[in-house]
Amino acid sequence: MINPQTLKGFRDFLPLEAKKRQFVIDTLKKVFESYGFEPLETPALEYQEILLGKYGEEGDKLMYKFEDNGKRKVALRYDQTVPLARVVARYQNEIPIPFKRYQIQNVWRAENTQKGRYREFTQCDADIIGSSSPLSDAEIISVAAKSLEKLGFKNYKIRVGDRKIFDGIPTEAIIVIDKLKKIGEEKVIIELKAKNIDEKILDRIKNSKPSADIESILKISNNVIFDPTIARGLNYYTDMIFEIEVEGYSAGSICGGGRYDNLIGMFAGREIPAVGFAFGFDRLMEAMEELKLFPANLTTTQALVTVFSSELKEKSMETAFLLREKDINTEIYLDEAAKIEKQLKYADKKQIPFVIIIGPDEAKNNTLTVKNLSTREQKTLSFPELLDLLKK
Amino acid sequence: MINPQTLKGFRDFLPLEAKKRQFVIDTLKKVFESYGFEPLETPALEYQEILLGKYGEEGDKLMYKFEDNGKRKVALRYDQTVPLARVVARYQNEIPIPFKRYQIQNVWRAENTQKGRYREFTQCDADIIGSSSPLSDAEIISVAAKSLEKLGFKNYKIRVGDRKIFDGIPTEAIIVIDKLKKIGEEKVIIELKAKNIDEKILDRIKNSKPSADIESILKISNNVIFDPTIARGLNYYTDMIFEIEVEGYSAGSICGGGRYDNLIGMFAGREIPAVGFAFGFDRLMEAMEELKLFPANLTTTQALVTVFSSELKEKSMETAFLLREKDINTEIYLDEAAKIEKQLKYADKKQIPFVIIIGPDEAKNNTLTVKNLSTREQKTLSFPELLDLLKK
Repeated sequence: MINPQTLKGFRDFLPLEAKKRQFVIDTLKKVFESYGFEPLETPALEYQEILLGKYGEEGDKLMYKFEDNGKRKVALRYDQTVPLARVVARYQNEIPIPFKRYQIQNVWRAENTQKGRYREFTQCDADIIGSSSPLSDAEIISVAAKSLEKLGFKNYKIRVGDRKIFDGIPTEAIIVIDKLKKIGEEKVIIELKAKNIDEKILDRIKNSKPSADIESILKISNNVIFDPTIARGLNYYTDMIFEIEVEGYSAGSICGGGRYDNLIGMFAGREIPAVGFAFGFDRLMEAMEELKLFPANLTTTQALVTVFSSELKEKSMETAFLLREKDINTEIYLDEAAKIEKQLKYADKKQIPFVIIIGPDEAKNNTLTVKNLSTREQKTLSFPELLDLLKK
Repeated sequence: MINPQTLKGFRDFLPLEAKKRQFVIDTLKKVFESYGFEPLETPALEYQEILLGKYGEEGDKLMYKFEDNGKRKVALRYDQTVPLARVVARYQNEIPIPFKRYQIQNVWRAENTQKGRYREFTQCDADIIGSSSPLSDAEIISVAAKSLEKLGFKNYKIRVGDRKIFDGIPTEAIIVIDKLKKIGEEKVIIELKAKNIDEKILDRIKNSKPSADIESILKISNNVIFDPTIARGLNYYTDMIFEIEVEGYSAGSICGGGRYDNLIGMFAGREIPAVGFAFGFDRLMEAMEELKLFPANLTTTQALVTVFSSELKEKSMETAFLLREKDINTEIYLDEAAKIEKQLKYADKKQIPFVIIIGPDEAKNNTLTVKNLSTREQKTLSFPELLDLLKK
């Protein structure tokens, strides 16, 4: 017997989990599209030449690389930014500029799976390519904030920083200061001293004032605050940067982004400005779960039509057909030999709110008995009365 | 310079195409869920042990196989049925039975790409696991028919056959008869003779009568017809089978399925009945395109707020904010230095129907000028009047 297992770091998503994922993705798509962001899909496999060397040595090590049947050196998608850069170079005459695209696809990384990291996970990115206007920075913050609101998050903070503040400051100092929120001021000072860096640099960063462009971003919402100490990725961002934390979820920021003007042009051979963000999809799911933001019932089925017997099967099929014609999401129980109790249990397991029973009496009187599974209340109704009840 | 190319048989989907794909997927999901089918996601990579040997020698050859960094033999998802069988074995105590799941994910096959075949393509499956009731067969046909109707197909035929009709008939005869619709009766008879098979077998098949269970399926819709000559996959289906053809699209059937009671139990170590179908997603997209079934405008953005100048930027940002608060999908043009003509061209390219202009006069009078891009008509309105116009 073959063990029906999955690879370490890979996951099956059974219906309940898959529906929750779908709920989040649908909500985000709707918000992104309401701002004019459009979807992009790129292949799971690309030439290694396109992907390698773009993520540093560590990235190259974690990439799933192999030779295909035609001896081509290929690799699985590692992120969505390098493929976006390739798309921008390839279709530069076809896409509208600024190019506002979102992309929600899986990526693969041979990560150490110990710390809740997965080897297959969903990335969720939105970016504006080809605009260096501060309006784009504001738009990115605004769409991120709206996304959180539509998902139901009430208490969150968007910390906005500015990489320009770190201009002229040695890399090793930036790395230490970026840890401020994580390890606290005392430890940052110790680390700076250990590296022979003047500790005054920390105060200088902390007291930096926001630029006029950052000022205008701070006006977007009360949830947006200025934090000059955040630095994020060392070689990636060039100007405005931000991170989002949610109150009540302590595993880290669930969203981050900023302006990165030196990256997207890598295949086009010229600098192309860009600003964007990514949700950490697994963290977002975890935060939604912990803060109980998922709707209580994600089942879309409103009624289960039970089957009383072989003789009455056609009657049940007809009822299911008529309900569906009236746009009521309806299941019919798929075994005419099953006892009604078993059919009710199935409805309970699938969280279907109403069960419809058509026994010999109902068939004779042209009525239906409907049972509300949460109140256990039961009524015998005509079809139009049933429709009224289910439409409520 | 690295050529920004994709691998042969792999595709980028730019926004317009990605939105069309999304339109079809969203429509199908909605129909599937209205019948109580629930989503399932399985990993892109699995142990080779799980996947190999299940698709025959040809399948094994076309599979993307490699060793991962941990020297595990892995392979990319080749279809969604074997992973479903694995899921059913692994979670048999957690999932409701019958298990009605749909799955819409990509699969990878190192196909010959000459004939419009792709190496990465989307599969779209719906199946009912664990029920051998003819009610399930009817449900599958019904959900397939409803899917086509919701996508806008009017003239289609669902040909229903029965593998039981071929019981006792030699495999080589089945293969020839299955080609009837493709090559015609004359050629089928020649081929039968060449194989020393009594040609009367064809008439016997053609004149077979539908069983009582198939009879009840034929009642579902006028588009369902009985065709005893279809056989489909040799070792896969066991009872009812069907294929769907669409009038005006001649490249072949866009959907097929049937009952396959010997497959899903492969990892569970016992027989588990199953019935289901798959849409050929690329063919479905092609048929939608040829029959012009996509909505004329898939853009969800209703209005582009232009930016007249740096001084009036804030006014435009405020208008975009207010429109979004009223649930109007709104873009703001992201470069305050661009001429209005350039901004109008951007709206044209993205098929945004309305453009809003706030120049010095509008700012002074607290009005907005709105231009309908299809009629080129232009009006100056108050904000409530604009809202009325956009809500229509």
